[in-house]
Amino acid sequence: MRLLILSLLFVSTFAWFYGRDEPDRWSVGGVWPLPQKIIYGSKNRTLTYDKIGIDLGDRKDCDVLLSMADNYMNKWLFPYPVEMKTGGTEDFIITVTVKEECPSGPPVHGASEEYLLRVSLSEAVINAQTVWGALRAMESLSHLVFYDQKSQEYKIRTVEIFDKPRFPVRGIMIDTSRHFLSLNVIKRQLEIMSMNKMNVLHWHLVDSESFPYTSEKFPELHGVGAYSPRHVYSREDIAEVIAFARLRGIRVIPEFDLPGHTSSWKGRKGFLTECFDEKGEETFLPNLVDPMNEANFDFISVSENVNRKTFNLLVQEFLEEVTETFPDQFLHLGGDEVNDFIVECWVRNKKIRKFMEEKGFGNDTILLENYFFEKLFAIVEKLKLKRKPIFWQEVFDNNIPDPNSIIHIWKGNTHEEIYEQVKNITSKNFPVIISACWYLNYIKYGADWRDEISGTAPSNSRYYYCDPTNFNGTDAQKNLVLGGIAAIWGELVDNTNIEARLWPRASAAAERLWSPAEKTQRAEDAWPRMHELRCRLVSRGYRIQPNNNPDFCPFEFDEPPATKSEL
Amino acid sequence: MRLLILSLLFVSTFAWFYGRDEPDRWSVGGVWPLPQKIIYGSKNRTLTYDKIGIDLGDRKDCDVLLSMADNYMNKWLFPYPVEMKTGGTEDFIITVTVKEECPSGPPVHGASEEYLLRVSLSEAVINAQTVWGALRAMESLSHLVFYDQKSQEYKIRTVEIFDKPRFPVRGIMIDTSRHFLSLNVIKRQLEIMSMNKMNVLHWHLVDSESFPYTSEKFPELHGVGAYSPRHVYSREDIAEVIAFARLRGIRVIPEFDLPGHTSSWKGRKGFLTECFDEKGEETFLPNLVDPMNEANFDFISVSENVNRKTFNLLVQEFLEEVTETFPDQFLHLGGDEVNDFIVECWVRNKKIRKFMEEKGFGNDTILLENYFFEKLFAIVEKLKLKRKPIFWQEVFDNNIPDPNSIIHIWKGNTHEEIYEQVKNITSKNFPVIISACWYLNYIKYGADWRDEISGTAPSNSRYYYCDPTNFNGTDAQKNLVLGGIAAIWGELVDNTNIEARLWPRASAAAERLWSPAEKTQRAEDAWPRMHELRCRLVSRGYRIQPNNNPDFCPFEFDEPPATKSEL
Repeated sequence: MRLLILSLLFVSTFAWFYGRDEPDRWSVGGVWPLPQKIIYGSKNRTLTYDKIGIDLGDRKDCDVLLSMADNYMNKWLFPYPVEMKTGGTEDFIITVTVKEECPSGPPVHGASEEYLLRVSLSEAVINAQTVWGALRAMESLSHLVFYDQKSQEYKIRTVEIFDKPRFPVRGIMIDTSRHFLSLNVIKRQLEIMSMNKMNVLHWHLVDSESFPYTSEKFPELHGVGAYSPRHVYSREDIAEVIAFARLRGIRVIPEFDLPGHTSSWKGRKGFLTECFDEKGEETFLPNLVDPMNEANFDFISVSENVNRKTFNLLVQEFLEEVTETFPDQFLHLGGDEVNDFIVECWVRNKKIRKFMEEKGFGNDTILLENYFFEKLFAIVEKLKLKRKPIFWQEVFDNNIPDPNSIIHIWKGNTHEEIYEQVKNITSKNFPVIISACWYLNYIKYGADWRDEISGTAPSNSRYYYCDPTNFNGTDAQKNLVLGGIAAIWGELVDNTNIEARLWPRASAAAERLWSPAEKTQRAEDAWPRMHELRCRLVSRGYRIQPNNNPDFCPFEFDEPPATKSEL
Repeated sequence: MRLLILSLLFVSTFAWFYGRDEPDRWSVGGVWPLPQKIIYGSKNRTLTYDKIGIDLGDRKDCDVLLSMADNYMNKWLFPYPVEMKTGGTEDFIITVTVKEECPSGPPVHGASEEYLLRVSLSEAVINAQTVWGALRAMESLSHLVFYDQKSQEYKIRTVEIFDKPRFPVRGIMIDTSRHFLSLNVIKRQLEIMSMNKMNVLHWHLVDSESFPYTSEKFPELHGVGAYSPRHVYSREDIAEVIAFARLRGIRVIPEFDLPGHTSSWKGRKGFLTECFDEKGEETFLPNLVDPMNEANFDFISVSENVNRKTFNLLVQEFLEEVTETFPDQFLHLGGDEVNDFIVECWVRNKKIRKFMEEKGFGNDTILLENYFFEKLFAIVEKLKLKRKPIFWQEVFDNNIPDPNSIIHIWKGNTHEEIYEQVKNITSKNFPVIISACWYLNYIKYGADWRDEISGTAPSNSRYYYCDPTNFNGTDAQKNLVLGGIAAIWGELVDNTNIEARLWPRASAAAERLWSPAEKTQRAEDAWPRMHELRCRLVSRGYRIQPNNNPDFCPFEFDEPPATKSEL
């Protein structure tokens, strides 16, 4: 049929309705995100799936590469529900050469993801510094494969690619406190992330609402704070997620948000301050750490009495356990929206007021916040396993961050406001990560990744165009921009809807954070590749929603009949 | 665990964060939509699943009831992933008595759905006029069943219910032109509809973008107009949907939108007019029927010449085929947004201008529209299988509808504007169906079913509160309100996201259209029942999204690892 003939559809004879793209405008063998350099050959080559081999060279025992070979050769290179040609005399070997040894841990910050990929009519060659680079190359290679409806064959485009990411941090933030997410669902997002060459899962584990993280040292935290005993992640669950992420070149950065957003830590007596309404009644749920309870974090002074000892060293011991659980060298400690709780929980709390007077803080709650953060910084500095702390921007905006901190930007109603903050924070020499451009939980009707659509800020739509270094600053400042993390806060998101809501909207962030800015200036040029990506991932079995008005895929996603939940 | 003890949580000691509902505020054995009359007993009874029987009395051969018994006894009464107690000496029989014979076809408009349901400690008794009433009763019965975490048993609440719907039309509109929907996905929506006691699937089959309906008489329509040969519904597919819907008490009303939104009929030469841009160039895609081509609908005058004969009688013959395919006595023929295409396709078309002069219409395109509709009404009137036509409101607003028509309201930025239209149209004695309150494709961030949230109109959020008879009019006028159809237009919706986007937002419409208005005035009272419904349906395997800020279900939805698409 006419509509199914795959061709590069960049010219349209008619304006489609309402100025929309034609429903079948997709690239053929387009790579997402766009590589640094890509030169297509003029010919394509037919692929016969049982005549393709992969040669891992010296690294044939590396679990990361073995997992990669298994995934791509058996599932992702040939995703469409078509009868596949087999046999014949063809041979096509994918030769993978990786310089560095197979790493035992997850990717470290700044690890090379660079690769060279050459596909000729006779073979494919991948050269990379690290296994992570090989993973990225293999994903690119899979994007070159297409199904030719006319000849009913899989084909691969010939190409030469040199590629590496623009930013070292390209992530997704999930929130498992507002709604619980299953391991299956988290793993599916990790797979889709890897298909978008994203390398960071920022796991906002706990918040006011629930405490699904299981602490061995302080089991009362999840015991009281989890939604239910079914709504928890065991240490084994977390290890499973980290291992799964590693095989796909993804680091897992945990967040334990302090000192606000802590109501779900309520299982720990004395950890939170009491909060009061205007009449002085205790009707507000405690949601802020008690900074005067030295036992909450004082690791220097040994407890003065037995009673105190029982909950001594909480933050320190808790964070020691966290670092044993999460190997990543970054550790996110929150720090956001403390001011939202200060009036109820600190200003109206007589004991706190007295403590502030004693300490000479007067009425200045910022000084009390600083007092808390200083203690926290000292704890982080002395952790047995060294960690670089990340804080939400308020710690920069209102407090005095540890100079070793990374600042995480989440505010800003417009791109310009966001750029202004990046400029400001990097001018003070702090590395930054940006989420404000990509608050994907905020939904709007339309192609919000591309079009101006009013609605809840930050991010304010058009997030394909939000470019973190688009500010007037020095090269040194721009080098402090580590990248971005698309956030999908959990208030209205759970297992039922997270995947379709994230993708392909987060793919817009993935391209912005990987590809050269100068080659990715127009969403209308990106769309055919994003469309092909959507269709490829739909056929791999992922729930990638339409994102650009009416369209279709050669092969659609389907949903089997309902079966009872097992969770 | 404290949080898991099921109890009626209508009192909260603390204000939850940001004024949100507590995450575990759900009813226990609450019925959705709220019945006309419901009186709970004080005791609950334990249910042991292999000791429950169902007695269908005289109707034990009725396929509708057999399917019902199969669904509820084997799947829906006991959805949770828990070990079920079995054995013992208990007996609990559900006795179903239906007055009318088993119908061979789908529900007819206005068929009784009334039922009586009594659950005592020893038995359940269902009395209904029709099998449709029995289906509604069985769904209510299933809502009375809950899992008691404390005793780890299923229990059922004792109750007496008298129930019947407020409106005869309570539907969902799906759009399979902008995006294709699979049979699996359509069937899943039909099941969830039945769990919300909805009884109408309005199937907007074709539109400008694609023509997935397969006509046997005019195969060129889908042959050229479908997205691809995979993106079509065969006659067998449609029969399967109708049969599946019937077993769940749902009618299927097809829509073939005329004379605008018709570009995808392009396979039929001469059916559409040519359209022109300002410069007179033919750059606009044709999207409007050619009203001067008598052959398009003239079923009286036999064609004057052979050439004309080749496309004679299109609309008439096409609609005869449609009525053979869809048994419902209603037939939706669109009529919306003709004005959007008139300038390009009629005003700027010289042949049309000449035709208008010849007919004495001058420059008045409304007269040309009327000319088209008159011909269409005449065709509908002479159809072999009689059909009551439904038209979108423009046919009332701009034209002269056939007095036999039902008017379908889709415009209005506020509830008040919508009520004003209902008042106006019913004052002219036309029956109405309302969709304007429930344009569920328009998404906004937040609990839009309940809260005022700005965004794309119509429906303008708070759709739980949109009450179709909330206007100053006579009883006769109010009786002309047939009900409502929640619409989910397909621009940004396909198999990947339709289910979570529809539910439980459409459940708000379902309650508004079924339950007594005076008992359903406050969304905050409805929420615990909607929450319990969400959790019950999640456990049955449906993708019912969070809709009220942080919450959880005792048992959550899960998504298995991805497998390749089969579609």
